[in-house]
Amino acid sequence: MAEHFADRLLAAIDAKGSPVCVGIDPVYGRLPAELIGDGADGVRQTGTLGAFCYEVIQLVAPIVPAVKVQSAYFEKYGWVGVDLYFKVVQFARECGLIVIGDVKRGDIGATAEAYAAGHLAREDAPDAITVNGYLGADGIQPFIDAAEQGGQGVFVLVRTSNPSAPAVQDFADAGGKTLYEHVAEQVAAMGEQTLGERGYSLVGAVVGATWPDQARQLRQVMPQQLFLVPGYGAQGASSADCAAAFKPDGTGAIVNASRCVIFAFDKDEYAGRPWRDAIAAATRAFAADIAGAVKA
Amino acid sequence: MAEHFADRLLAAIDAKGSPVCVGIDPVYGRLPAELIGDGADGVRQTGTLGAFCYEVIQLVAPIVPAVKVQSAYFEKYGWVGVDLYFKVVQFARECGLIVIGDVKRGDIGATAEAYAAGHLAREDAPDAITVNGYLGADGIQPFIDAAEQGGQGVFVLVRTSNPSAPAVQDFADAGGKTLYEHVAEQVAAMGEQTLGERGYSLVGAVVGATWPDQARQLRQVMPQQLFLVPGYGAQGASSADCAAAFKPDGTGAIVNASRCVIFAFDKDEYAGRPWRDAIAAATRAFAADIAGAVKA
Repeated sequence: MAEHFADRLLAAIDAKGSPVCVGIDPVYGRLPAELIGDGADGVRQTGTLGAFCYEVIQLVAPIVPAVKVQSAYFEKYGWVGVDLYFKVVQFARECGLIVIGDVKRGDIGATAEAYAAGHLAREDAPDAITVNGYLGADGIQPFIDAAEQGGQGVFVLVRTSNPSAPAVQDFADAGGKTLYEHVAEQVAAMGEQTLGERGYSLVGAVVGATWPDQARQLRQVMPQQLFLVPGYGAQGASSADCAAAFKPDGTGAIVNASRCVIFAFDKDEYAGRPWRDAIAAATRAFAADIAGAVKA
Repeated sequence: MAEHFADRLLAAIDAKGSPVCVGIDPVYGRLPAELIGDGADGVRQTGTLGAFCYEVIQLVAPIVPAVKVQSAYFEKYGWVGVDLYFKVVQFARECGLIVIGDVKRGDIGATAEAYAAGHLAREDAPDAITVNGYLGADGIQPFIDAAEQGGQGVFVLVRTSNPSAPAVQDFADAGGKTLYEHVAEQVAAMGEQTLGERGYSLVGAVVGATWPDQARQLRQVMPQQLFLVPGYGAQGASSADCAAAFKPDGTGAIVNASRCVIFAFDKDEYAGRPWRDAIAAATRAFAADIAGAVKA
């Protein structure tokens, strides 16, 4: 069996000096004009999309420990896009990155096993995937079992970063306990048997940075979970907000940024710089910002 | 714009005389021995899997109004399986069936739009898909918008049929209202603007048959939703349990059965019969059982 996922991720964070992850969320219309050229339609766009992903991965690999590849932007192109998703995942792994496949799958029993076979138990699978736990433990355990087998991880959605998250996830019982705390308790319990050497489970949690008070609270409920933290940058969370997801020793979470890094060449502060330089500079700024906030 | 999804589904149910749906959940190891022959490994299994799916669809098309294609069993094989998923969906549509893609996708904003583009806004897309609403309205609306554009539907997970569903979905507030009721209210509100001529919305709900009391309650909360009802057969629900999801006029739901129909040739009651006969007979028995229970 491969080394424990949590230990691998923590070692990669230590090696790069910042607990950050770049989100590979490629959107054809936002790619550098130089790459688009005369343009392409439909699945022909995937050629350019792939070229962009490979370049971004090479740019960020020396700076960050991990990337998160968003499956939706590949599934948009049907099977051609799915083929590219797995190629991008594999390329990133070959560049020495820890790769999280953001697939948010969730189903039950044999169906969840089939998803786990398709997204974890493959040679070209990512190191971890995201999972939606609305169906309860039946919908999560098959992913944990497959991940354990492959030295991989799962991040279960607990508290997401979007504006309408509270309308579902803050639903509270008579004692004031919210749904996200209730789910967090289940995630903590499900992860107890699969700890790595540094005390973290292969079962992690997605906890949005846009709600720092909840992140602090969830840090208590899930002491053995690594948090995957979306919401920095384009979604409005600051590095100080993100810091709420970490333990006092600076471990326990990895912060993701997608659009504000990979489309940095569109931002005023990088105006006029070549797109590759802009992406590399934005990646370094993001890594330094988070590292500074977590240490402080 | 195409005819409204709910009107199309209701018309198909009327034409076939039973509100049922056959689940296409192909598992290589369970296929008829005659199809497997000397066997195949890895993606080579998809050839046999496809042949089985096409046969099943032709067998059930004269009997039932709809099929539900479970994406997980195709994604298991990577992009080759995803290609087959869309081919199977298209084949079923060409056989005159309403096709529900059971993909349980869910994400937010631009990411949900990308999923909707990949699973609804395509020529070879199914007539409807299932959606996981844990992320709230942000995670559902992009699917509704795409479905409205294409004359399609979405079924939002409300109360699933699996044993661990209550541990999350029955979480209740101080007034005793459960999470599934809370989600149901949101689904009902989100569907209000998109009604067809017969009063049903293109926004439907997944409501498991294994909990008939909850189904009856949810029938009140979501009067304009068509229910997609899993849990019959292999999961233990009877036709009487399923009837709880319908209105007194016999409309309002469609019951799915997967394994007990497509693998009927393995059941004692069909022992010795050719596998195609067994599937056709099990489909007719399923359709008659539900039609009888709903009328009664």
